Amino acid sequence: METQQSLIWGKRTVLEFLRKEAPLQRIYVVADGAGLNREFFQMAKEQAIPVVRSQKQRLDSMTGRANHQGVVASLGERAFAAWQEVLEAVAVSGRKMLVLALDGVQDPGNFGALLRTAEGAGSQGVVVAAAGSCPLSATVSKASAGADAYLKVARSDRLEKVLGELADEGVQIIATTPDADKNYWEVDWKRPSVLVLGAEGSGISDSILRRCTVRVRLPMLGQVQSLNVAASAAAVLYEAVRQRS
Amino acid sequence: METQQSLIWGKRTVLEFLRKEAPLQRIYVVADGAGLNREFFQMAKEQAIPVVRSQKQRLDSMTGRANHQGVVASLGERAFAAWQEVLEAVAVSGRKMLVLALDGVQDPGNFGALLRTAEGAGSQGVVVAAAGSCPLSATVSKASAGADAYLKVARSDRLEKVLGELADEGVQIIATTPDADKNYWEVDWKRPSVLVLGAEGSGISDSILRRCTVRVRLPMLGQVQSLNVAASAAAVLYEAVRQRS
Repeated sequence: METQQSLIWGKRTVLEFLRKEAPLQRIYVVADGAGLNREFFQMAKEQAIPVVRSQKQRLDSMTGRANHQGVVASLGERAFAAWQEVLEAVAVSGRKMLVLALDGVQDPGNFGALLRTAEGAGSQGVVVAAAGSCPLSATVSKASAGADAYLKVARSDRLEKVLGELADEGVQIIATTPDADKNYWEVDWKRPSVLVLGAEGSGISDSILRRCTVRVRLPMLGQVQSLNVAASAAAVLYEAVRQRS
Repeated sequence: METQQSLIWGKRTVLEFLRKEAPLQRIYVVADGAGLNREFFQMAKEQAIPVVRSQKQRLDSMTGRANHQGVVASLGERAFAAWQEVLEAVAVSGRKMLVLALDGVQDPGNFGALLRTAEGAGSQGVVVAAAGSCPLSATVSKASAGADAYLKVARSDRLEKVLGELADEGVQIIATTPDADKNYWEVDWKRPSVLVLGAEGSGISDSILRRCTVRVRLPMLGQVQSLNVAASAAAVLYEAVRQRS
């Protein structure tokens, strides 16, 4: 079932999505190929996006007779990476681990902003708790400014186990909680680190908090009780950038 | 002209908005007062929100026969503060100036997130360039988690003049631009400071950039070219918090 909201069209637009490797589910092209070049079909093939030959009338009806130029694509969800791929990304990066672990971040705008900031701060990957997490949708991709294509994003239904194993290997698992004694800059971020952030409101769940080896807080100097989760991540991850520079 | 999207209703909801001093334009109450207490009417009076006595039928039709409990309010825009009020807030804070100046931030979600982060970081106020800026709408208020009520937010049609005068008084006017030589943490944020951020895409306009006395950059360690403007602000403002702590 595809609604009109999840479709894009026009040669240039679809080509841009392909170039950015934004998540496309399927591409519909008129029988004569709409004058699209080999690069176009090559990229679709490499990204394993099915190209469906369609009647012009079908594209007309899908788009409400928009100027689709013979090409329409449906937006999909990107598949999550395996946790092992995040570990591999850490290994090939040549840098100490800086991974973001998210427990229950559901808002796609926040999720996208978190991916963008993590990628900008040189994080090698992100892992989200499967329970209550947001899929890697086109909205997330857009909010991440394409960062979702550059960063390994894994989903785990046993995030507490993943974190426990990392802690056993000497990685510091750093939870941000309002009641921590220590400010986030009082941590040695040059060490291999996982930053754990919870959902706005409910925070980090107890089972995950138990696996955290360090708790830090962001001082709030005004009246508001907390920052937006994406803003918190930016402040903390860039402290890691500063310390590592 | 009020659309259904800009209305809230129900005693508890409207009362919460009043308590948070969220921007309400007008409150509609049924003739018998709907059992609302004196505190309710007192708050509306103090916030200069007109209370209009209305027929139940009118409220039914406004809300599409929702369970409005006899009270409906239309969301409005908060008035901008005068620039002088920001200066006064700096004076009474007992802290060195930490003001955010925004040039052309139009997205209400970003604007709200910026206000929330600024307030959390102990900023005394925000000033926005009048050209292309976003009004202090209910969407901004919501995205700011109510921070817009605690922070002086001024709008200026001569932001370059305001910044020039501050620079003459010894305030450092710090622009974030991708081509700066210096990282943002290589600035002494204990000094009175204004952080200038531009719109995503177009950046800070030339006339305003000319008044900036320092240029800093956020290092981007991955593939994405920049952070979201609210994430940039969080990273930089919390460096000021760290240095001042």
